[in-house]
Amino acid sequence: MARATTVQDVIITPVAFHDMPLLNSVGVHEPFALRSIIEVITEDSYGLGESYGDSTHLARLRKAAKQIKGLSVYSTNSIYKVCVDSLVDDTSTGGDGMAGMVTTASAADKVFSPFEVACLDIQGKLAGLPVSDLLGGRVRDNVQYSAYLFYKWAGHPGQPDDEYGVALDPEGVVNQARKMIDEYGFKAIKLKGGVFPPAQEVEAMKALHAAFPGVPLRLDPNAAWTVETSIWVAKELEGIVEYLEDPAPEIEGMAAVAKAAPMPLATNMAVVAFSHLPASILQDAVQVILSDHHFWGGLRKSQTLAAICAIWGMRLSMHSNSHLGISLAAMTHLASATTNLDYACDTHWPWKRRDEDVIVDGALKWVDGGVEVPTAPGLGIELDRQKLAHLHQQYLDCGLQKRDDTTYMQRFQPEFSAKIPRW
Amino acid sequence: MARATTVQDVIITPVAFHDMPLLNSVGVHEPFALRSIIEVITEDSYGLGESYGDSTHLARLRKAAKQIKGLSVYSTNSIYKVCVDSLVDDTSTGGDGMAGMVTTASAADKVFSPFEVACLDIQGKLAGLPVSDLLGGRVRDNVQYSAYLFYKWAGHPGQPDDEYGVALDPEGVVNQARKMIDEYGFKAIKLKGGVFPPAQEVEAMKALHAAFPGVPLRLDPNAAWTVETSIWVAKELEGIVEYLEDPAPEIEGMAAVAKAAPMPLATNMAVVAFSHLPASILQDAVQVILSDHHFWGGLRKSQTLAAICAIWGMRLSMHSNSHLGISLAAMTHLASATTNLDYACDTHWPWKRRDEDVIVDGALKWVDGGVEVPTAPGLGIELDRQKLAHLHQQYLDCGLQKRDDTTYMQRFQPEFSAKIPRW
Repeated sequence: MARATTVQDVIITPVAFHDMPLLNSVGVHEPFALRSIIEVITEDSYGLGESYGDSTHLARLRKAAKQIKGLSVYSTNSIYKVCVDSLVDDTSTGGDGMAGMVTTASAADKVFSPFEVACLDIQGKLAGLPVSDLLGGRVRDNVQYSAYLFYKWAGHPGQPDDEYGVALDPEGVVNQARKMIDEYGFKAIKLKGGVFPPAQEVEAMKALHAAFPGVPLRLDPNAAWTVETSIWVAKELEGIVEYLEDPAPEIEGMAAVAKAAPMPLATNMAVVAFSHLPASILQDAVQVILSDHHFWGGLRKSQTLAAICAIWGMRLSMHSNSHLGISLAAMTHLASATTNLDYACDTHWPWKRRDEDVIVDGALKWVDGGVEVPTAPGLGIELDRQKLAHLHQQYLDCGLQKRDDTTYMQRFQPEFSAKIPRW
Repeated sequence: MARATTVQDVIITPVAFHDMPLLNSVGVHEPFALRSIIEVITEDSYGLGESYGDSTHLARLRKAAKQIKGLSVYSTNSIYKVCVDSLVDDTSTGGDGMAGMVTTASAADKVFSPFEVACLDIQGKLAGLPVSDLLGGRVRDNVQYSAYLFYKWAGHPGQPDDEYGVALDPEGVVNQARKMIDEYGFKAIKLKGGVFPPAQEVEAMKALHAAFPGVPLRLDPNAAWTVETSIWVAKELEGIVEYLEDPAPEIEGMAAVAKAAPMPLATNMAVVAFSHLPASILQDAVQVILSDHHFWGGLRKSQTLAAICAIWGMRLSMHSNSHLGISLAAMTHLASATTNLDYACDTHWPWKRRDEDVIVDGALKWVDGGVEVPTAPGLGIELDRQKLAHLHQQYLDCGLQKRDDTTYMQRFQPEFSAKIPRW
């Protein structure tokens, strides 16, 4: 048993996949999104993890990986310690792959996460069990996701229009929602806001409400608003959104908005690490945590976060970044075994080209707005080495080293500023 | 795989084992301590759990057990739901096996705990891994326990003196500590107080401090003191105890003492369920949680508690009741995989007759004041059916149905009152 559970090698491969010009408060998505693919290899098995692809993060992953060799895939306590210790002298900044939007998350939790997921993948394979069973067993067989709408340009400047085309006004947003829901069957809708003046985004939400009556809606301006603006928007959207996501910056800003907002406030910016919870809870700053195993330290730590939400009466949803199939599988297993998941999870999945991924097709099935929880051992997915090689080559060719929505935006709108709050 | 992980049967056997006349704030231990032994049986394996033996708790365990049959040993989410649902119409009181001292713990967590431990035992056996590996892997190979001293009579009235003999004054307490440390090598000492007027117990602690210089000490009067008395004791014992355990009743009482006490306050009475944490944290009522997987809902939920302690800056120790080897194994695995365990754990082990248990001898080895973490699959212990039958017969013969230290005390001291605080 011992040899079969020992990590013999860790391979970290940066990849790039095509992304569309999605707008947000800090700029616009570049033509490629970056990810790191982590393979943890034992004598007769391997496990997969997926994380950010920024160069700083890659360097951290590689440094930790060296010391994970020789440890057991069950020794996650020791692997976590390796990640913490490997960051002791780390003075680099960024590396979160989130364009500066989640800068205060725990670096150790971010580095640990893909290794933990890969170890759970192997644990599941060795036991012949899906990862969901390692997390306490499925409480749902289909994990619901939301239609994640973005204001966007028709295509990247200088390139043809993409499949989704333009969405720069309420009508464009509604059309985008319709296309996405037609294809995936989503039963909840989220709009990434913080792009246009708040009144225009309120109009878009009202248009969505009219076009999709009864469908739960959310708006996320990524902290682009002042407290005053946030409260105005909250009152405008009473009865229309199930929660308002990160209207204003920081715990203090959210707490001030929460006092006046008629709906729960959600966050994946103000509270992004365990160390943020005490202050947030003390002020009742947020009522919904958008968990994300990529920065909350993996699947088991995300379960700890879920337990904390239950204890302190907060609700639980799930955050997403541009991601590939390994992350979707991990998110789905986690969500399937989380009793107190209260909302459809977010995913960027529809924005990814259907033919770009690193896993073998067919393992993740979309049904009725959700993903069927894989029941094969581990994450239930397998690496497609040809596809991996292709996306790695794309990484080398595209030349991107980190996500930088702001600089890309400024190439076309030199006066653009990512300063928040803007309104 | 599916058949091998399905619960085919659950057997719950109440047992009784000899206990010594240990004094506490609510009375004196009866001649027998009661426990329930839980066997969860799958097609080709079985797992063990141990819990309280009170009739109310037994009835709850049996009710839940019926509906656990047919579930997977990995479906702990579903098993927990069974426990919650089976208690919906429950109007019985007590059942905690703790003589009324931990009455507000979650009944569902208490019922779930032994089933969860048994399921983890099976999961470990199926994977060929010790339970510690299922919990993230050992961070220590030897789990330290404390010498758990009690004021006591020489023997049960009408019976010969027991092995430990009398301890009713500081000298008796020091002698008891010496005997226990000589045998086990304990490196920390806890005295159960709340028996004599506080000044006498303070003298006992000072005598221990003089006799064992440098050894960490703790005093636990089980909430027998008022806030004022607690503060007086705290000041008397400054620099002598590493923590003061449950000096005064309730979160409010602890919070009031904490404001003035020079040492951390610990609890296994004021905060005994996840629902107590928010109020306690808000008031900084306790600085050390004495975790106990028997009432915090098993090993994984105890890990959640440990994570919460780390996040909110509380320290972590471990509580004990009179128990047998299954509990000691589970406590040891949990403690071995808990990074932020800050103190030696409590155990009643020395008060149990060496020849009374339900497990095969030899699996749990005491070395230097601690237990070597078993490395065999699962909990690393096996049921001895002959011993189990013997302790079950002893349960039937002794006629006890619940723990009741108070009534037993009143048989010899009719005027005794368990009212707290007493001083």
